[in-house]
Amino acid sequence: MKNSANKPSWKERLHEIIYEADTKEGKLFDVILLVAIIASIILVMLESVESFDTKYHDQLNISEWVITILFSIEYVLRVITIKKPSKYIFSFFGIIDLLSTIPKYLSFIIIGSHNLAALRALRLLRVFRILKVARYIGASNRLIVALKASRAKILVFLFFVIILCLILGTIMYMIEGEENGFTSIPRSVYWAVVTLTTVGYGDIAPNTPFGQFIASIIMVLGYGIIAIPTGIVSSEMTKHEGSDLDFNTQSCPNCLADRHKENSIFCYNCGDTLNPDERNT
Amino acid sequence: MKNSANKPSWKERLHEIIYEADTKEGKLFDVILLVAIIASIILVMLESVESFDTKYHDQLNISEWVITILFSIEYVLRVITIKKPSKYIFSFFGIIDLLSTIPKYLSFIIIGSHNLAALRALRLLRVFRILKVARYIGASNRLIVALKASRAKILVFLFFVIILCLILGTIMYMIEGEENGFTSIPRSVYWAVVTLTTVGYGDIAPNTPFGQFIASIIMVLGYGIIAIPTGIVSSEMTKHEGSDLDFNTQSCPNCLADRHKENSIFCYNCGDTLNPDERNT
Amino acid sequence: MKNSANKPSWKERLHEIIYEADTKEGKLFDVILLVAIIASIILVMLESVESFDTKYHDQLNISEWVITILFSIEYVLRVITIKKPSKYIFSFFGIIDLLSTIPKYLSFIIIGSHNLAALRALRLLRVFRILKVARYIGASNRLIVALKASRAKILVFLFFVIILCLILGTIMYMIEGEENGFTSIPRSVYWAVVTLTTVGYGDIAPNTPFGQFIASIIMVLGYGIIAIPTGIVSSEMTKHEGSDLDFNTQSCPNCLADRHKENSIFCYNCGDTLNPDERNT
Amino acid sequence: MKNSANKPSWKERLHEIIYEADTKEGKLFDVILLVAIIASIILVMLESVESFDTKYHDQLNISEWVITILFSIEYVLRVITIKKPSKYIFSFFGIIDLLSTIPKYLSFIIIGSHNLAALRALRLLRVFRILKVARYIGASNRLIVALKASRAKILVFLFFVIILCLILGTIMYMIEGEENGFTSIPRSVYWAVVTLTTVGYGDIAPNTPFGQFIASIIMVLGYGIIAIPTGIVSSEMTKHEGSDLDFNTQSCPNCLADRHKENSIFCYNCGDTLNPDERNT
Repeated sequence: MKNSANKPSWKERLHEIIYEADTKEGKLFDVILLVAIIASIILVMLESVESFDTKYHDQLNISEWVITILFSIEYVLRVITIKKPSKYIFSFFGIIDLLSTIPKYLSFIIIGSHNLAALRALRLLRVFRILKVARYIGASNRLIVALKASRAKILVFLFFVIILCLILGTIMYMIEGEENGFTSIPRSVYWAVVTLTTVGYGDIAPNTPFGQFIASIIMVLGYGIIAIPTGIVSSEMTKHEGSDLDFNTQSCPNCLADRHKENSIFCYNCGDTLNPDERNT
Repeated sequence: MKNSANKPSWKERLHEIIYEADTKEGKLFDVILLVAIIASIILVMLESVESFDTKYHDQLNISEWVITILFSIEYVLRVITIKKPSKYIFSFFGIIDLLSTIPKYLSFIIIGSHNLAALRALRLLRVFRILKVARYIGASNRLIVALKASRAKILVFLFFVIILCLILGTIMYMIEGEENGFTSIPRSVYWAVVTLTTVGYGDIAPNTPFGQFIASIIMVLGYGIIAIPTGIVSSEMTKHEGSDLDFNTQSCPNCLADRHKENSIFCYNCGDTLNPDERNT
Repeated sequence: MKNSANKPSWKERLHEIIYEADTKEGKLFDVILLVAIIASIILVMLESVESFDTKYHDQLNISEWVITILFSIEYVLRVITIKKPSKYIFSFFGIIDLLSTIPKYLSFIIIGSHNLAALRALRLLRVFRILKVARYIGASNRLIVALKASRAKILVFLFFVIILCLILGTIMYMIEGEENGFTSIPRSVYWAVVTLTTVGYGDIAPNTPFGQFIASIIMVLGYGIIAIPTGIVSSEMTKHEGSDLDFNTQSCPNCLADRHKENSIFCYNCGDTLNPDERNT
Repeated sequence: MKNSANKPSWKERLHEIIYEADTKEGKLFDVILLVAIIASIILVMLESVESFDTKYHDQLNISEWVITILFSIEYVLRVITIKKPSKYIFSFFGIIDLLSTIPKYLSFIIIGSHNLAALRALRLLRVFRILKVARYIGASNRLIVALKASRAKILVFLFFVIILCLILGTIMYMIEGEENGFTSIPRSVYWAVVTLTTVGYGDIAPNTPFGQFIASIIMVLGYGIIAIPTGIVSSEMTKHEGSDLDFNTQSCPNCLADRHKENSIFCYNCGDTLNPDERNT
């Protein structure tokens, strides 16, 4: 039934180019895609700058159409070259790919929708596709493993930080009061977060000597407890340093599963035959 | 005398549900409690937002009454199901549980007390009860052990930071003077804390070139010494990584002691028989 | 010649109380000294708050006299009980002890000198004496060793940060120019330090889009390179974790050298007999 | 052909003084150079302060001429004493050395060019020459190795931070809108960078309650993820702690290659004989 052992069909070759980064063509495709994504993000950002938009409105519009059509072609190719299209269409990246091309077409159908910032911003979803490319960088594998291992501890820490901010915010609300800008508990808690995380906007700042004293304690506290997440990640990174985490960039032509171990022949998920790795042949 | 070996009495069953998280019912109770606590915190916060309070005053009041009555029932059950009620009543969490329910009843007796922010804020004490639930998370055990081990060093560091701020604040008070916002030594020390901890509100900022030069040194110093607490915690975390810290969530029905080792049958504190762990039977 | 082996003279006993913290009396003396130092620091700070000074001027003045006389007595006792007074008088702490008591006496002689902030601030030098007490905390020994070991690397890092700020400040001076608050290169460098160290006062902030773009890069850079000193200290702390660093609090009655190894009988510096450690007899 | 084994020629002796730091004269030369560079940087900075420039214009001008001539002599000597001058002239430091001396001569030829800030700032390029001296510090070798090893991971992290800022900035642009200072997506992204890196200028700050809520999450996130680069560098530093990294300060008289292993006799790059290390003879 499968002809992947012999000469691959055009669909299989396209699958390898689009979904994988093992071949020369696959790498080139990824680089072009990355450039197109970055270009499209810059376009959306420039459009939001009013003075720029009024000056170069037509150029921006044309560029946006070109990129939208390119992404549409890519979307269609992705659907065609996969064995089970539904697997891709309803995957996280499948939905993002669709949502990020739609807004431009809608602006064609509904007149005036062009001005809807929310719709326009949908195109920024393409940024997530960069993450897909980032996955190919070996270093990020180790990072992800270390972060996953320390996830529970970091969540406990962030949970602890939030409770601390709730308590400290309420205390400052009672000390400083509404006349000094601490108009409500949520606003005081917001101030406590701004202070404890050492961001310090200065839009709300304590005015009474006692309030400044408590604020100083909060700052020193925030300066000290930043050590906790750092310690967690450091110890995890040190632990995982030696482990072997080399995955290749292949993705199963049948079920889209990736992170196959180097030199895998069959998919660990559905058992289908993987495309032969060009580097080994 | 004790019938804990045979069929447990309703008191013992209730004790297991309320004080422990080993059984299905116990876990469900903890989740409901957590939701109730978070709901009550949100209520107190919303009440402090004036525009919201005037609009939805009645709804907030009713919700607050519902939650207060629920916590009161829980408090009574906790007192009844324990063998020595005084152990719970005078414990840290016993006092918090009582204090956080009282304010609402007081608003019923004393007319006008409803407006006292200090009393209303007492209800926020419920936030500490979340910590009780947090204790059940395995990851926090390791965190607490590492923090306890590095406590002395971190205190020495914070003590050093405070002395540094005292000295630097006084220096800046003499350099910048009252005309640039450094009106007193305490205020200058407050500024030094804001700067050294890299919070940087900007409500007080140096204006003279020499003051800005000294401020730059303080900032670079603060940027550098943040490494110290981080180094302390990191080395502690690395050290304690391998140790075994698995406690179960049982608590003694007699003396409330917890952190029993997995599979304990008798309390390590008073020797009383613990409730049989359902997971093992 | 020496009678330290037999019953110690009153001078020797006073030396042990004042200079060491091995005996009960020595510890008590240190605690009283610490309280007096903190009280004197608070006094100097309160005096600088104008509204407070005009209200409680007499009380502050009397308290300050009491503390100054106490410190003077301590200074005289320190000079008497040591074998070679010049060793103490010209040591770092000897000079600080003298300088911090002088200003009050000067205010008695020269009328009007009371208002000199610079002289008054001299009394704040007492803060350094706290460091002397801090030395007795075991945890600070390990901290100091780790910091000394990583000193060279941290200096290289801070040196690198300063050069970076020089370059980035000059770039921003050319981009933003004088009309956006970057009036001179030193001021721009000051801004670069404020930004790179993540302090962020906001007294100077980029206004042009390109300036904000460069500023964003500086911030992300500052956010990233804070990892370097932390990494340095972390690795040093991990290395020195196991080493033995227990010194006792004895100080040689002859040459003032301290940090003697536990159970030392003779001074490692001058060979004189140390006071017998009470804990071992 | 080579007479380096016997008495070295004056060119070889000058090469050793200028390019290396093994001999007493070489070290002295480096210290003088360092002082001259720092003096020249301070001059450029002072010139940019308008009030200072108008007052001491002539003194600044003369000092700048003295330093420029000194650097010119050094440049000529560097070209003469090396075997292949083109190697130095077209190296990174060769170009910097030339560029940093040119502006002053141009001010002589073109009247009015004195006021060009961009040209004047070229002289600040000398700051990079300090890096050349910094290289001789042993501690920086270890730092560089650890940083090179963790480069890939830190780049992945910074890349992740930038994407996060793009997404969070866009979300805040839609929540807060133009009436609260978030006038365009690039400006919102700038705000997200300012917030996530905990810089917090306060020139743009969220005003709506929901915006403040999202901002709080961004801050806590920024406070948490700073742990990642720190963990990376920490684990790298710990790993490289034991490795041997002692290079000497010799540089090949033929090809300028440096970082020769201690006691090397021949250049690892071109095989030419190195100057005999004076410390060993």
